Amino acid sequence: MRIIWSAGDPHGIGPEIILKSFLQLERFGHTFIVAGSYTVMDYYRKALDLPVKLEQVINASEITNTETARFGVLPVLDIAEPDTIKPGTISAEAGRVAMESIKAAADLCRTSVCDALVTAPINKESIALAGYRDTGHTGFLGNMFRISSPTMMFFDPVLNLKVALATIHEPLHKIPELIRKMDLNAFLTSLAESLKTDFGIDNPRIAVLGLNPHASDGGVMGREEEEIIQPCIERLSAFLHVDGPFPADGFFGAGRYHNYDIVVAMYHDQGLLPFKVLAFDTGVNVTLGLPIVRTSPDHGTGFDIAGKGIASGRSCYEATLLAIKIARNRKQTAHPL
Amino acid sequence: MRIIWSAGDPHGIGPEIILKSFLQLERFGHTFIVAGSYTVMDYYRKALDLPVKLEQVINASEITNTETARFGVLPVLDIAEPDTIKPGTISAEAGRVAMESIKAAADLCRTSVCDALVTAPINKESIALAGYRDTGHTGFLGNMFRISSPTMMFFDPVLNLKVALATIHEPLHKIPELIRKMDLNAFLTSLAESLKTDFGIDNPRIAVLGLNPHASDGGVMGREEEEIIQPCIERLSAFLHVDGPFPADGFFGAGRYHNYDIVVAMYHDQGLLPFKVLAFDTGVNVTLGLPIVRTSPDHGTGFDIAGKGIASGRSCYEATLLAIKIARNRKQTAHPL
Repeated sequence: MRIIWSAGDPHGIGPEIILKSFLQLERFGHTFIVAGSYTVMDYYRKALDLPVKLEQVINASEITNTETARFGVLPVLDIAEPDTIKPGTISAEAGRVAMESIKAAADLCRTSVCDALVTAPINKESIALAGYRDTGHTGFLGNMFRISSPTMMFFDPVLNLKVALATIHEPLHKIPELIRKMDLNAFLTSLAESLKTDFGIDNPRIAVLGLNPHASDGGVMGREEEEIIQPCIERLSAFLHVDGPFPADGFFGAGRYHNYDIVVAMYHDQGLLPFKVLAFDTGVNVTLGLPIVRTSPDHGTGFDIAGKGIASGRSCYEATLLAIKIARNRKQTAHPL
Repeated sequence: MRIIWSAGDPHGIGPEIILKSFLQLERFGHTFIVAGSYTVMDYYRKALDLPVKLEQVINASEITNTETARFGVLPVLDIAEPDTIKPGTISAEAGRVAMESIKAAADLCRTSVCDALVTAPINKESIALAGYRDTGHTGFLGNMFRISSPTMMFFDPVLNLKVALATIHEPLHKIPELIRKMDLNAFLTSLAESLKTDFGIDNPRIAVLGLNPHASDGGVMGREEEEIIQPCIERLSAFLHVDGPFPADGFFGAGRYHNYDIVVAMYHDQGLLPFKVLAFDTGVNVTLGLPIVRTSPDHGTGFDIAGKGIASGRSCYEATLLAIKIARNRKQTAHPL
């Protein structure tokens, strides 16, 4: 497999976690490439004294030669250079470098030069400053591949916990209307399809959380469960294993996720709060429904610790392993034995 | 101390967890009383073969004599009788018995016959069927004592974690508007006061979570942080230790709650999802800002396991211990040495 990392925000912990992951991963015999800025990668390599050699790559055609990678050498496809490097700061230029790296890396996956993309964290404020309308990976890649709503999923390999979000980076006040308007039917059907293709789960068991507290307690607090979620689950039950809507608050604490292959949360914090408590530092973010394989660590840019050498590379490491697994599953599905 | 338990929904696990808690607690030398139905308590005592004797008490004046309680004997103040007992079922009659028990028990605290109220779980649907407008303890007690917005707080004695909710049992679509309209200033000030009076914390450190995902990432997703929460925190910082608004998703997973005496969540699931994952079975619910002391276990009626003898009494036990602690702190504040 040939895996490409987009280096993330030059002022965050992205370069550091990539270098640390590379040190742990290269022995598994795959090829790794970074899309980003050579200067930035080299800055962190030196500053943190990490025993990795970097190799500057100028254009994509050279990438195909990295199968003959020398041990301990990480090729960096030089996409864009920031004028300055100031760890921990918001900057339009850093946002621009981060986004151009993602675009270049995704293009290399689109053209099958690389098998999977693992994205290091970006900063929404920097990207908004740089003038981008889509400030998150999922939306940006969705637009790039003309997929109206790719699914954001989180995976913890330790607990084998998967959480998918029905809505993603939206202000809270928009969520109820979005849930009413979205095609929950298509969302759940496509989720089941992805679990089959990407995770090799043939008849996935899906748990759906309620939108309102206590899943509305029978309509006492909100109507979306009765009017939208429950009817959808009933329709789908004929051909999918879907249960719910469950009251969200006790679902994770009671360990009920162990009965399911995936839990569907209605909005960002409903899924991410329990996930981040349970997954500790092994959680991984996956985008389902794209033509390319894309995973990422489930943490942010860590501006408070950037450049200090104390960031954990574990989530990036797990994200890379998952990208390899999904890429392999997709190849097997495409060419069954 | 004289502690009164309201027995909760007759069809839930309330009677069972009270009997189990009594078995563990009576050796600590306090007096315990149940407000509910003698028939119901006796039904579960027999069905679950729990080694407790019950004593029927008909009117409140007898209560004062329970200081001379016999060991192993739990007095039951007989408030109301349901016609039938059907564990696990919703019923208007069960809702009525549950609410009348709460009212009677709260009255005995108001008149200082009892020092603290610990409420067993009730079912919102049964109570709505019984015709009550307030289907939760917090709202009901708030109305009873003419406190417009008592604060719902959760406490875990194992982690020493406290989480308070800025809004409680509301449909999700109402939350942003409620946050904009509420007096967050008064809420936080009164919270600090309760932490001092009830928990003996003189200068409490308060963490406030954002409403939107990533606390809006600087206004990219929602405006409530910039327009409401941040300005309020800045105003209060002159005389209180208040920090935030923090992005909610990573706050608990990163263990940042260890730096604070209390975490303020903007809505039910934002506070309860991580709390229930972290607190396991020792979590407790407290109502702050009432003239009486009121705690409860942080779980529901458990209709699926009611009458089976497998409910854990741990949360009810911890709720009762906390009620004793708060009642003691309040007495000390009222009559300083």
